[in-house]
Amino acid sequence: MNSILEAIESRISVNHFRPDVAMDDAIVQALISYATRAPSAYNLQNWRFIAVRSAEAKERLRAVAYRQQKIVEASVVFIVCGTLSAHEQFQQVIQPSVDQGVMEQSLADRWVAQIKAIHTDNPGMQRDEAVRSASLAAMTLMLAAKGMGLASCPMVGFDPKGVAKEFGLKDTDVPVILVAVGHEADGNWPQKPRRPLHEVLEIV
Amino acid sequence: MNSILEAIESRISVNHFRPDVAMDDAIVQALISYATRAPSAYNLQNWRFIAVRSAEAKERLRAVAYRQQKIVEASVVFIVCGTLSAHEQFQQVIQPSVDQGVMEQSLADRWVAQIKAIHTDNPGMQRDEAVRSASLAAMTLMLAAKGMGLASCPMVGFDPKGVAKEFGLKDTDVPVILVAVGHEADGNWPQKPRRPLHEVLEIV
Repeated sequence: MNSILEAIESRISVNHFRPDVAMDDAIVQALISYATRAPSAYNLQNWRFIAVRSAEAKERLRAVAYRQQKIVEASVVFIVCGTLSAHEQFQQVIQPSVDQGVMEQSLADRWVAQIKAIHTDNPGMQRDEAVRSASLAAMTLMLAAKGMGLASCPMVGFDPKGVAKEFGLKDTDVPVILVAVGHEADGNWPQKPRRPLHEVLEIV
Repeated sequence: MNSILEAIESRISVNHFRPDVAMDDAIVQALISYATRAPSAYNLQNWRFIAVRSAEAKERLRAVAYRQQKIVEASVVFIVCGTLSAHEQFQQVIQPSVDQGVMEQSLADRWVAQIKAIHTDNPGMQRDEAVRSASLAAMTLMLAAKGMGLASCPMVGFDPKGVAKEFGLKDTDVPVILVAVGHEADGNWPQKPRRPLHEVLEIV
């Protein structure tokens, strides 16, 4: 058994963190550096992360997230946002792939045109893609935390409008999920049981 | 550097797989067993996986996915679905957590009532949750594949209605993402560049 598989098997969503354990910039940055290694369609990278770390900011977040205690106990809580305007920023996002010789300019131009065609005036696709990319990054973030000896907890119990207002999100930023990261305290649940495979898997 | 972090840093989305490398049931099942260790809100597990493995089924999938060659070259392609009817099946899904002593019946009952209240007649929430849960599982699946020495590629380029029709999805199953898994061939892209951290991370 290698440690990726062990991490996946043993990860739990932690409700109780050791409060007052500070996390420095370097760890916060490392976590997001790993999170952004997640794939996104066309490498859109249509995501943005707000690391809520100060006591004052955590209280503001808690106030719009059903007053969940873990928000103030975790070392940091990331607001993981997906971006609805992926198609508007894609030209700029893809250019380094051309500049670094990963792809030809002509292919990059074709991709930019495709994304414009797919996303423009298509709010359903914009939102699906925002939720999808942000979630792929959030999962990578949680496993990276595990790899760095930290515990995490995903949360969807928050008021999106309240979060947007408190943290100055743009209209095009969708707060998809919160991920608390910190040091595990006692008293957490074990990993909860999963549905049997035959209920969720069909092989054709 | 441990192997979780190495896996996250070195994972690439593979376009070229070694064709004709079969994958037996045990590997397919192991991959999904790992994928379902992903978290989901309230442990809803609102997902379903169709492993497209036979040559005939791969051709059917390719026909509704822009004829992408990797679909037939990968050993298996998973159709990762999110479920819109999470609230209708949650009573049954949560019961093992009570039966195995992880939580009290009274808490489970409260969660079931909350999910009913949140999801019923709320198609936006149902869809967000379906896309979110399926994406968390898909990311876990890709990293599990890496941990098992396999390569993967996520794909969103497919016709959802065509996939639903070809593979008999229910009206409540949203095909969120395809994940091809197999053995890496030559000629793949390196990992594409990521946006600089200062563009995507804000610490407050």
